[in-house]
Amino acid sequence: MEPFTQQDYRARQERVREELGRRGLAGLVLFDAISIRYLSGFAFIPTERPIALVLARSGEAGLFVPLLEAEHAKKAPAVDRVRSYPEYPGRRHPMHFLADLVTELGLRGHRLGADRMRYGGFGYRGPSLAELGVAREWLDAGDVVETMRLVKEPKEIEVIRECARWGDLAHRKLQEYSGPGRREMDVASRASREATAAMMAALGPDFRPEGQTGAHAGFRGQIGPNSALPHAVNLNLAMSPGDTLVTGAGAEIWGYHSELERTMFVAEPSAEQRRFFQHMLNLQDIALEAIRPGRTCADVDREVERYFEEHGLMPYWRHHSGHNIGLNYHEPPFLDVGDETPIEPGMLFTVEPGLYVEGLGGFRHSDTVLVTDTGIEFVSHYPRDLDSLIVG
Amino acid sequence: MEPFTQQDYRARQERVREELGRRGLAGLVLFDAISIRYLSGFAFIPTERPIALVLARSGEAGLFVPLLEAEHAKKAPAVDRVRSYPEYPGRRHPMHFLADLVTELGLRGHRLGADRMRYGGFGYRGPSLAELGVAREWLDAGDVVETMRLVKEPKEIEVIRECARWGDLAHRKLQEYSGPGRREMDVASRASREATAAMMAALGPDFRPEGQTGAHAGFRGQIGPNSALPHAVNLNLAMSPGDTLVTGAGAEIWGYHSELERTMFVAEPSAEQRRFFQHMLNLQDIALEAIRPGRTCADVDREVERYFEEHGLMPYWRHHSGHNIGLNYHEPPFLDVGDETPIEPGMLFTVEPGLYVEGLGGFRHSDTVLVTDTGIEFVSHYPRDLDSLIVG
Repeated sequence: MEPFTQQDYRARQERVREELGRRGLAGLVLFDAISIRYLSGFAFIPTERPIALVLARSGEAGLFVPLLEAEHAKKAPAVDRVRSYPEYPGRRHPMHFLADLVTELGLRGHRLGADRMRYGGFGYRGPSLAELGVAREWLDAGDVVETMRLVKEPKEIEVIRECARWGDLAHRKLQEYSGPGRREMDVASRASREATAAMMAALGPDFRPEGQTGAHAGFRGQIGPNSALPHAVNLNLAMSPGDTLVTGAGAEIWGYHSELERTMFVAEPSAEQRRFFQHMLNLQDIALEAIRPGRTCADVDREVERYFEEHGLMPYWRHHSGHNIGLNYHEPPFLDVGDETPIEPGMLFTVEPGLYVEGLGGFRHSDTVLVTDTGIEFVSHYPRDLDSLIVG
Repeated sequence: MEPFTQQDYRARQERVREELGRRGLAGLVLFDAISIRYLSGFAFIPTERPIALVLARSGEAGLFVPLLEAEHAKKAPAVDRVRSYPEYPGRRHPMHFLADLVTELGLRGHRLGADRMRYGGFGYRGPSLAELGVAREWLDAGDVVETMRLVKEPKEIEVIRECARWGDLAHRKLQEYSGPGRREMDVASRASREATAAMMAALGPDFRPEGQTGAHAGFRGQIGPNSALPHAVNLNLAMSPGDTLVTGAGAEIWGYHSELERTMFVAEPSAEQRRFFQHMLNLQDIALEAIRPGRTCADVDREVERYFEEHGLMPYWRHHSGHNIGLNYHEPPFLDVGDETPIEPGMLFTVEPGLYVEGLGGFRHSDTVLVTDTGIEFVSHYPRDLDSLIVG
C-alpha cells in the first residue's frame, strides 16, 4: 500500500482553489486538524497551541505552527511555507504570527474564507480572525473541504478497505475470546493487540503509520442490559450467560477508519432476543437495499423508519441509519430523515439501524459499505446471521 | 478509591452558580464534553450530535442530549432534567430543543453565559446560540469552569496520583522492553497492555472505569534523530545503538491523566549526548525549584529561559517549561513567559523544559508535580539520572 503523495495533496489543494475562485475568495484558513492533514499531509495532535493551514488562491500553501512543530511541518508533503511562533501564550500572541503569514501570502486586505472564526479548545484564549484586522472580510467556508470529502478517492477507498480487513480480524478475535465470566477490557485488549500485531507484521517494517495506527475491537460497556445504551463508555463488565453483546471493531491507517459492529449472545438467546435480532437484521437489509445513486440519504432512513412504524417498534428506536466514514469516524452525509444529500458512487456509509430494549439489551449490526454505480459493495466482511454470533 | 459522588458534582455546580451571580448571569450553557463531565458526572464521546449542560442560577442542572444518550444521561450523578432530541440533523434542528430546555429552566429572555457561541465539529451545521432568540444576551463565560479547574480538589489529586502510579509502572516496562532492534509499537503495546492489566487487577472487579481507562507508555516516533521533533507521531521505528529516545507514559482514570517522560539512550551515550542530557537535567532542576506559591507561571519559565540564554542554548529551545494537567492533558495555566497566573497550592504541573538537537535527538524529562504550601511534591516517581536510563 503506497502512502498518499505530494501529487495527491496538490490535486486536493487545486480543487480547493477552484472553489475559492467560484466564491470570490482570495484564500482559505483552516484550523481543523483533519482537514489540514487531508490537504497537506501534515499530521499532528491538536493542543492549546493553534495550528492553521492557509491556502492562497494564487497557489501557495502555508502552515502556521508553534516552533516545536516547525521542523515536522517543513517535512510535510505539500507545504510551500512554514511560519512558526515561539509558544502559546508567549510574549506576542500566536494569532499575530498567523496574520503575518496571511500577509506573506499576499492575502492582506482580501476577502478570505475560514472553517471557523476563532481557534478554540480548553485553555486557549485569543482574538478571532476578524479581530486581527488582516482581511477585508471573513466568510464561513467550512463546507469547502467537507464537500470534497463526501465522495472518497480510489486511494482513500483502498486504505479504508485495508482498515476493514484488520478490523474484521480484530472482531474475529473478540468473538473468540468472549464468553461467560470474561471481562470487557481483557477480551478487548487481547483482541486489539493481537490484530494490531498481525496488521503491523503484514504491512511490513517499511510501513510508516504516522499516527494512531492499529486495529481495535471492544464493547464500550454494551454488555447485557447495558447494551441497551448505545454509545456507552467502557465499564469493564463481566459477561454472563443470556447477555446480549454489542461490539465495535475497526482499524486506523494514516488517519482513516472503518467500522464493523455485531450483536452477539452469550450462550443460547431467548425467544425475545431472537425476535429483536431478526427485526434488526430486517432493518439492516432494508437500509442496505435502499442505498444507491439517484436516491437521497433521507430516502434510506425513511424506509427504515417505515419498518419501525409498521411493526410497532418506535419505542425501541434511538438513532438514524448510518453515516459516512473516512478520516473522521462520523462524517456527513448522514443516513437521516433530515439529510437530503443525494447518494453518489464513491461515498462510504456505515449501515446500522438499531433497536434498544430496556432490561434486555441493544440490537445493532454495523457494516461499512461502498456506494457503487448500482447499489453497494461490502467493505467490512463478517457473518450477520444469529447462529454465527453465539459465544460461550 | 471512591468515585466522585453526587455531592462532589453538586458542590462544583454551586461554585458555578455563585460565579454566575457575581456576573449577573441567570444561567450557563456548556458544550465542552470535559466541562460537562466535571460538573455533572455525565461522560460521553462527542460527535456531530450536539450535547450541552445548562445550569440555572436558581439551582437546576439540565442535560440536552440526542435520544441515544437519554437513558445514559438520566443516570448521571448530578442532573435534574434531561431534554432529548430525536437525531442530528433530524426533521427539526437539535438546537431548537436546546432552546426548549432553556425555556423549561426559566431562563428565556435572561442574560446567559456560554463556553462557546456555536456548537462545532466536522460535519455539523447549525444556528449559533444568538440565532435561537431565546436569551436577552449571550456572554462568553468559558473561563468560569476553566478557572475552577486551575486548582485541583483533594480527591482529584488522589485520582491523579493513582494515574501516576500506573504510568510509572508502564514506563518501567517500556524501559525493560526497549533495546537495539526493538520496534516502537511492539515495545509500547506490550508495556501498555501489561501495565493496564496490573492496574485493573489492583483496582479490582468492582471498579468502573467509565471511559478510556488504562496505562500507556510509548515514544510517539521520538526515536534516534527523530526524537529531535517534539510531539511527533507514532512511526514504528526500530531502535539502534546510539539512539536517543524520548518516552511518554501515564494512565487515565475517570478521565484524569498523569504524565511522565524520560530521555533514554540505547547503549552507551556519546559525550555530546551526555552534555545535552546534563543541560536538560539542570533546566528541569531550575524549573522544579522555581515553582512555589507567591510566584507566577511566567517567573518559572523566565528562569528556565535565562539558563538557555546564558549557556548559548537558545538554538535548541522549542517550547515552554510545562502545563497544568487534569481532565485534559494540557490545561491552563502554562509555565510560559506569557502566563502571569499566580502559582497556588493544589495546582499540578508537568515540568518539562527540553532541548532539541538536529541529527542527534531530543532531551526532555517530564514529571508531574503538585504545588504545596512551600514548593512542590513529585506525583510521578522515576529515576532521573543518566545511568538509570541506558537500555540494551
